[in-house]
This record gives sequence, C-alpha cells and structure tokens, in this order.
Amino acid sequence: MKCSTLPCDLRIGIIGAGQLGLMLFQQGIRLGFKFNVLGKPEDPLCKYTACYGEDEYEQFVDDSDIVTFEFEHANGKAMEYAQSKGKLKPEINSVNLKREREKEFLYLKSIGAPLPKFEIARDGSEAIEIAKNQFNNNAVIKRSVGGYDGKGQYFVKNNIENFNFLKEDKSRFVVVEYVDFDYEASIIVSRGDDRTIYYPPSFNLNKKGILVINYGPLVIPEAKDIGYLITKSLNYIGTMGIELFVRGREVLVNEISPRVHNSGHYTLTSCKHSQFESHLRAISGLGLLEPECNGYFGMLNLLGVQTINSELDKYGQVFMYSKPGTNPRRKVGHINVTGDSIESVKFKINNLINEVYGSLDDLIAKL
Amino acid sequence: MKCSTLPCDLRIGIIGAGQLGLMLFQQGIRLGFKFNVLGKPEDPLCKYTACYGEDEYEQFVDDSDIVTFEFEHANGKAMEYAQSKGKLKPEINSVNLKREREKEFLYLKSIGAPLPKFEIARDGSEAIEIAKNQFNNNAVIKRSVGGYDGKGQYFVKNNIENFNFLKEDKSRFVVVEYVDFDYEASIIVSRGDDRTIYYPPSFNLNKKGILVINYGPLVIPEAKDIGYLITKSLNYIGTMGIELFVRGREVLVNEISPRVHNSGHYTLTSCKHSQFESHLRAISGLGLLEPECNGYFGMLNLLGVQTINSELDKYGQVFMYSKPGTNPRRKVGHINVTGDSIESVKFKINNLINEVYGSLDDLIAKL
Repeated sequence: MKCSTLPCDLRIGIIGAGQLGLMLFQQGIRLGFKFNVLGKPEDPLCKYTACYGEDEYEQFVDDSDIVTFEFEHANGKAMEYAQSKGKLKPEINSVNLKREREKEFLYLKSIGAPLPKFEIARDGSEAIEIAKNQFNNNAVIKRSVGGYDGKGQYFVKNNIENFNFLKEDKSRFVVVEYVDFDYEASIIVSRGDDRTIYYPPSFNLNKKGILVINYGPLVIPEAKDIGYLITKSLNYIGTMGIELFVRGREVLVNEISPRVHNSGHYTLTSCKHSQFESHLRAISGLGLLEPECNGYFGMLNLLGVQTINSELDKYGQVFMYSKPGTNPRRKVGHINVTGDSIESVKFKINNLINEVYGSLDDLIAKL
Repeated sequence: MKCSTLPCDLRIGIIGAGQLGLMLFQQGIRLGFKFNVLGKPEDPLCKYTACYGEDEYEQFVDDSDIVTFEFEHANGKAMEYAQSKGKLKPEINSVNLKREREKEFLYLKSIGAPLPKFEIARDGSEAIEIAKNQFNNNAVIKRSVGGYDGKGQYFVKNNIENFNFLKEDKSRFVVVEYVDFDYEASIIVSRGDDRTIYYPPSFNLNKKGILVINYGPLVIPEAKDIGYLITKSLNYIGTMGIELFVRGREVLVNEISPRVHNSGHYTLTSCKHSQFESHLRAISGLGLLEPECNGYFGMLNLLGVQTINSELDKYGQVFMYSKPGTNPRRKVGHINVTGDSIESVKFKINNLINEVYGSLDDLIAKL
C-alpha cells in the first residue's frame, strides 16, 4: 500500500515503543499518519498511545497497513510475521544481518564496502588465537550474536592474557583489527522507491559503546557513496544509520543500523525534514524530499539523569523520553544545539555537559 | 501542581480534541508532558491517543493534574468541574466572557482596552434601531450568545432593510460600529506566573468570518500593550490570541480567544518555542522562554480540501489534522511558509493558493 497525497492515512505499525518509536510517532502526526504500536505499557510511546502487547503481534500486524521497527532487536516474531504478509519495511534482510554480526561483516565485504580487517572465529579459543597471531594482540573481539550498545565486545590492546575467560566460550565471534581511528563519524541515509537522500555526516564521540555527543556537519564525500552502496544493494527502504571510522584519508564502515539512529537526532532541529519523517515518507511511498539541513548542529545525550533544569531548553532544544533514569547508561533524552560555526556548537555542548554532568569525565566515569 | 524540571511529568487534561488539541499534544511530547483528552472518537486527537467520552468529564478531571481547553466553546461542564477543583488553567473567567459577547465587550471597555464603539441591544428590534440611529446604518449586529467563526453576525452596510427578520428575535445583541479598517491583525500572548511573552503580530486575511491566510511579522507596538493589559487584568495563565483592527494609527480590539489561536500556527515553524509549547509551559508552571521567532512567516489555511499534493510539503511545511474535508469551511490543515521578506512569503502563499484552490477567488466563493 502506498500514499501519494497528504494526509497519508495509512496505518503504520511500529515494532518497539522506545524513544525512536516515540519520535517517529511525534514526527508523523503532521502528515496524517495513523499508528499502531507494539510495546510494553511502561515504554515511552505507550504512555502516549494505546499499545499492543508483545504477544498480540499477529493482530498488530493484521491491523497495520505497513509495519516498521524502531530497533532491529525488537520483537523478531512480529518482524517475521509482517515480512510474511509483505508488510515489513525495511525488509527482514537487513535485520538478519544484525542478528549475527558475522553476517553483517561478510555481507558488507561481499558488496565491496570498505571495512576494517576481520576474521570469523568459531569459538572463543579461536578468537583469542586470531587476535594474537593475525592482529598482533590489537583487536576487538565481538560476539557474533547478542552484542549491541557496547555489550559483548572485548577490546584487546596488548593484553590478550586478560581475555582467557573467552577460551571456554563456545559462541562464534568476529575478530576485527583494532582501528586506531582519528575519529568516529556517521551518516544518515534514507532510501525510498524513487530516490535516496543523505543527511550531513556528523562527528560522534562514543564512550564505552554509547554515543555521548555528536556534531557537524562534516565533509566526508565517501560517506554518501557508502550509503548509496549499502542501501541500494539491500534494496533498503527507510532510514539507515551507518557508523564510520575515519583514519587519515580512509573511511571504513564500523556498523550499520537499519533504522533511525541516535546520531541523527540533530535532524529534528536543524533539518526541515527529519530522519524520522523521511523514514515514514520512504516506507509509505509518500516520497522523500531534500532534508534541507541548515547551519551547524550538535547533540548531547542525556544518560541516566532523572531530571534536568528546565532552563536548559533555552540553550538548546531538549527532548525527553519519559523513562526512569536509574541506569547510568540509559538514554533518557537528548539536547540539540545549533550555531553558526563548529566552535560555537562545541562551546554550547561543553556548557551543557558541565551543567548536566559536572564534566565530561564525570559522565564517562559513570557509564 | 507545578513543574520546575524536565521532564514535566504532570498530566495535562485537554478539553477538546480538534486540531488545536492535536498540536498541543504533539508539541508537548518532547517536554515529557502526559495527557488526558476529552473528545469524540472521530476527533483528530482521539485518533492518536485514548480519549475520555464527553460525559466522563468528572473522571477526566479527577485523573488530570491540570486541565486546559483547546477551544472556549468545548465541554462547559468539564470546565466548570475543573474550575471547582482548582485545576482549570486559564480560569473560567476568560471563558465566561466568551459565552456572552456583551460581557466580553463590557469587560474590555471596563479595563480601558481600545474598542470600536458599541451598544448592547436587549433584542433584535432594539439592535436594528441602534444600527440605524446611532451607527448611521453601518454596523455589525452580533448575537450575544452562540456566535463564533462568523456565525451569528450581520453586516449592515446601508442595507438595514435586509435585516428586518431580526425584529422578531428576542435574543440579546451587541451592535458595533462598522470599522472600515485598513487591515486585520492579531497578536499571540502567553502569560505565566512570572512573565508574559509576545509573539510577533501578523496580518490576517479573514473572509466570511474565517481566517484564510496570515503573514508577518508586523510592527504594531500597541499590540503588546493591549496583550499585557488584557492578560494581566484577567490574571490569565496560558496562551491567548487577540484579534485587532488597524485603522490609520488606531489599533482596536476585535475579539479575544482565551486559547491557542489559528493566527499563531506560524509559530510551529518560525519560532523555537511555539504558542502550543508556551501554553503548556505557562499552565504547568514550567516557565515561559523567549519564543525566538526568526525571519518572515506566512500561513495558508486548508479549508474543506480532501487531500493535497504531497509535493507541497517542499514549498512550505504542511500540517494535516486528519479530519474529513466535506464541509468547505472546515479547517483540515494548514501550510506554513518562511522567507527572507514579506514579499517572498506572500509570493509563496499565492503560489500555494493557486495550487490548492485554483485562485483566492475560487476559495472565497466556496466558503
């Protein structure tokens, strides 16, 4: 089913009701989209709209015209059922890559995407051997299944003896060269039936596997080519985040996220058409528009803070997700800033970090 | 109850679920507000969130921390019950003025607001006499009760004989001098416990009692003073729209709307803090921030159109309300435009009018 006029009255089913779902919902209202949501009562989006329970997924899919997901590790049964009904967008092929990290690596390699060197290990013992012998004791050992947001990743830096506990582990792993990158970046790409659009790449500061701040725009011409290659080869429909390592003149893919992405939250404030809106435009067939992003942008994640001073909304644009902030790694909101130079957005972000956390070091120590 | 930090987790009850309620809801999400809504299942906002039925108003009020309304003629019992519980913001005094137009006129006169000349008539026969003798056959006869959106208003322009049908009418009327204004304008004001903020005034084109387009900013220094006077004297909390007549150097109040207002929809696109957000900030005690409106703005109402070309979202920012567009006077959406001059926004609006309606004359003929 497709829309060609506004309002688009298709009913979009969102699998997952966290902050990404919440922002899809909020951004979709002005274009007339209707929503069904699959999630738990305590999830952010389920505080705003009635949600289907996790085991009502068949009804949820049957009641929706198009089904999408806010997170690739959300209810897999719902995704498969929606795929079987021809309703899932993006399709299950991109999710499958994320279910086993080795598939993601092998797929990206097969299409010629620039990647760090890597090897697949059949178990922990083999992973240790590869890290030692092929990567000279400098590698990241990643669990093939079940690792995301920094979980299931082991950073080996001349200290392989610390990881002997992996020797008994019978899981499969991907062992990746340790990339001594200059910086991490990302690009948000949205692909529809007829065209692909690209948001300006951002510089990303990740700490302990979690995005802390990002800002931009960066000029990384290769990012667009990489985005085109990956989304085109998957016949992808929707918004995708692609995380990159930049090392000198080399741009490598770190990983892909087949959904709207934390590093694209700045698009809510700095672009006429946000990553969330573009996702909905793509999956509904409404058609993508140039995002029209202006100026310099920055974003600070709010991690594990219960509340913030309401005055901070004066210095940036605050987005709260309304979830309990008891876990220090939990994303409970973010603050977007804009400015007329990179220096100005960095200055604003630093001030906000000091206001919210005391200092960047205090924040990192907590994670 | 009040908020001082973000997220503001107060539960705001909105009486009425039309487009104004929908935009309050949509704009309140990022600050963490929770909502209860009183409305009919077919209302725009009830398509996005569960609504209380019109006769469940006591439960609705009891379940809400603060109660507000999107429209002064919405469920009056709910307003009175909320007032009796100390939860209604703005309070019932401003609504009472709108229930009888003569009260609005007399109140505004009593506080010294600049008004057109007017007289109260005890019935239709007296209204005809006043129009004839005191206003020289050039007047607007307004029904004191039950008239809004152009309804219940009779424009006498040297043709009093056409209005003889009013002679038998036992209702009360306000008879107002016919103001041969240069143009109509409005200002949006938000007043909180601690401060009052003012949005840039706009030029408004009303036809047959309905706002068709508006644009600005206009410079009308008196508008701010008028806004201060009226909201302060009512001890008003929330956003108010004040419609003005401008005649030479004279600025007169046409009417007040104790709520967010159609002529302030531009604030969604051109201001960092929209009229909807400011309303919520004011009633929750979160505190008002400078709206930070930039550049030139314009807005076109979508009246009675079923659908529009989705490409129009490229030339402006479209907001659809998801209601059936069968009545040609029905507001089903609006399009905001921005530009770097008044000419540029007028040009864009004219193009959109031609796209949507054929021409302004075609639109007016339909109303």
